[in-house]
Amino acid sequence: MIIGLDMMGGDFAPLEAVKGIQLYLSETDSPAILFLTGDEAQLNPLLQEYNIPADRVKVVHAPQVIDMHEHPTKALKEKQQSSIAIGFHLLATGKTEAFISAGNTGAMLVGAMYSIKAIEGVQRPTISTIIPKENGKTGLLLDVGLNADCKPEHLNQFAILGSLYAQHILGISNPRVALLNIGEEEGKGNILAQNTYPLLKENSQINFTGNIEGRDVLEDKADVMVCEGFTGNVILKMAESIYDITHRKEIRHEYFDRFNFELYGGTPVLGVAKPVIIGHGISHARAFCNMIKVAQKMIEADLMNKMKASFEA
Amino acid sequence: MIIGLDMMGGDFAPLEAVKGIQLYLSETDSPAILFLTGDEAQLNPLLQEYNIPADRVKVVHAPQVIDMHEHPTKALKEKQQSSIAIGFHLLATGKTEAFISAGNTGAMLVGAMYSIKAIEGVQRPTISTIIPKENGKTGLLLDVGLNADCKPEHLNQFAILGSLYAQHILGISNPRVALLNIGEEEGKGNILAQNTYPLLKENSQINFTGNIEGRDVLEDKADVMVCEGFTGNVILKMAESIYDITHRKEIRHEYFDRFNFELYGGTPVLGVAKPVIIGHGISHARAFCNMIKVAQKMIEADLMNKMKASFEA
Repeated sequence: MIIGLDMMGGDFAPLEAVKGIQLYLSETDSPAILFLTGDEAQLNPLLQEYNIPADRVKVVHAPQVIDMHEHPTKALKEKQQSSIAIGFHLLATGKTEAFISAGNTGAMLVGAMYSIKAIEGVQRPTISTIIPKENGKTGLLLDVGLNADCKPEHLNQFAILGSLYAQHILGISNPRVALLNIGEEEGKGNILAQNTYPLLKENSQINFTGNIEGRDVLEDKADVMVCEGFTGNVILKMAESIYDITHRKEIRHEYFDRFNFELYGGTPVLGVAKPVIIGHGISHARAFCNMIKVAQKMIEADLMNKMKASFEA
Repeated sequence: MIIGLDMMGGDFAPLEAVKGIQLYLSETDSPAILFLTGDEAQLNPLLQEYNIPADRVKVVHAPQVIDMHEHPTKALKEKQQSSIAIGFHLLATGKTEAFISAGNTGAMLVGAMYSIKAIEGVQRPTISTIIPKENGKTGLLLDVGLNADCKPEHLNQFAILGSLYAQHILGISNPRVALLNIGEEEGKGNILAQNTYPLLKENSQINFTGNIEGRDVLEDKADVMVCEGFTGNVILKMAESIYDITHRKEIRHEYFDRFNFELYGGTPVLGVAKPVIIGHGISHARAFCNMIKVAQKMIEADLMNKMKASFEA
C-alpha cells in the first residue's frame, strides 16, 4: 500500500508532518509506504533527524508550494510542480492509493474534483466532520462546507456516503442516519428539509431514523447527521471554537478534549473516486499521523469500491 | 404601565410564574402593574401564599389552557377563553402594553402575528436569542427559527430590528451587525448570503461590519448576527445543549453558566406592533422575572415606535 502525503501543507509543515510520520510508523503494525511530495532539500535532513527509515518513505521532489491564501484553481494550474499538484498526479496515475494534505483547502478540493473526479452517479462530493458525542461515541456530520446550496437529492447522497464511511471507517454497524432539522416530526423544517425527508425515508440503502435538532447534535441520537454545507460549516466552526474557548479559559474536561480535531486527523472528501484527505491548516504531528491512519483504513476497507457499488445500484 | 402575563404557560406554571413575579417586584424600583391571565382558583391562593401585593397585580380569569402540544392555530381559535387568547385580547385592545407567556410557542407566534400584526413594512417578524460571548459581553442572533426559509430582504430587515433591540434594550451603542456566513470575504457563502451581503452593505440604518463565521459566534466579532431561521435555530438549540451537557457532566464554569437562558428571560417577537415575549417551556422564577423586566424595558425605551419609524423611512 502506498499513500501520498503533501509535506509542505499546513502552518507547521514540514516539521510536524515528519513528526507525524514518525508517530504513524511507531504506532502501526503494517504501515503503508509513504510517498512524500515537497522540497527535498528541506525534507531529507528532517527525515534523517527524525530517524524515518528510508525503506518506508520516498521523497518525490516538488519545487513549488501553493500557499494557504492562493486562489485554488489558478494556483493548481500555474504551479504544476507544487507538492499538491504532484501529489494529485501521483494519485491520478495510480502511483499512490490515497493523498493527504494540510495545505490550501480549496486547492485540495479542486484537485480532488478535477484530477480524481467524482464516483459515477455522485452529483456532489462532500466533506464531513467527526462530532464527539456526550456519551463518548462519535458521530459524522456532513456536508460541512463544500456544498453551501443543496438539493434534496444531494443530501440523500450524502446520507449514503456518510453511512458507508460510518460503517466501514468508524466501525458503526447499521449506522443511524438522521436529517438535521428544526423540528422532530416529518413535515417540519425549511423547504430543503421538508423535501429531503421523504427521499431519506424511501432510501433502502440507509437506516434512516428521522429528524434531529440542534440539541441532538452532541447527543447520541444519530450516527450520521445530514445537512447542507452552510449549516454544517457553522456547526463545525462553532464546535472548533468551543474547543478553543475552553482551552483559553482553562476549562479542562475529558469531554472538551474530544473536540480536538487532531484526534480525528482530517476531513476525507467523500464521493470522489480515490481517498483524498484534507487536514486543518494548524495540524500538528498527531493530526498528520491520524490522517495517514484514516487513509490506510479507507484503502484496507476498500471503501471506494463499496461507494461505487452503492451508486451503481 | 401594565404588562400581561400568562400564568398557565410552561412546565412549572403557575407556581414558578408567581415566584417570578415575587422576584420581579423585589428587584424593581418602579414595577409595572401585572395583568395575570389564568385560572383564578389556582392563582389567588398562590399569590396570597407568596405575598404578592394586591395593588400590583390583577387576575383576569381564563378558564382554559392551551397545552404545549396542541396545534397552535386550531387551539387559539377553539380556546378563546384560554390564558393565551385572553392575554392577546388584552394586548390588542390596549388594556395591556406587553404580553408574556412561557406556554405553547406556536400559539404565541400565531397570536402575535394575527392579533397584534406586523409593523407596517416588516415582511417577516422574527425571534432572536442572546448569545453569551467569550469576553463577557452578549450578542444577539436572529432569526432563530421563526423563518426557516428567507429572502435577502428578510435578513436585511432582521438586521434593522436586531440592531434597534441591541441598541435600546441591550444597551449597545452603534451595534456591529454581521452576516453569519461560511467565509469572511464578500461573495462567499450560499446564494442567500451572497445576495444578502450587498443589501446589508448598502443599508444606512445599520453598522454593517461584514461576514462572520461559525467560529465567531461565541467571540466578540459582532453584536447582532443575522441568518435565516434554520441555521439560527440549530445554533440556539446547540448552545442550549452545551449548557445542559456541562451541567450533566458537572463542568462548572462562569462562562457556561451564562448559557443559561433564564438569565435573559425569553425571546421577544421582533417586528410585531407590540411587545410580545415568549418564554422557554422549562422557565423557572428567574426566567419569568427577567421576561417581565425585558417587557418593561421595551415599553420604557419606546422600542415599538422606534421600530415603526425605521420602517417608515
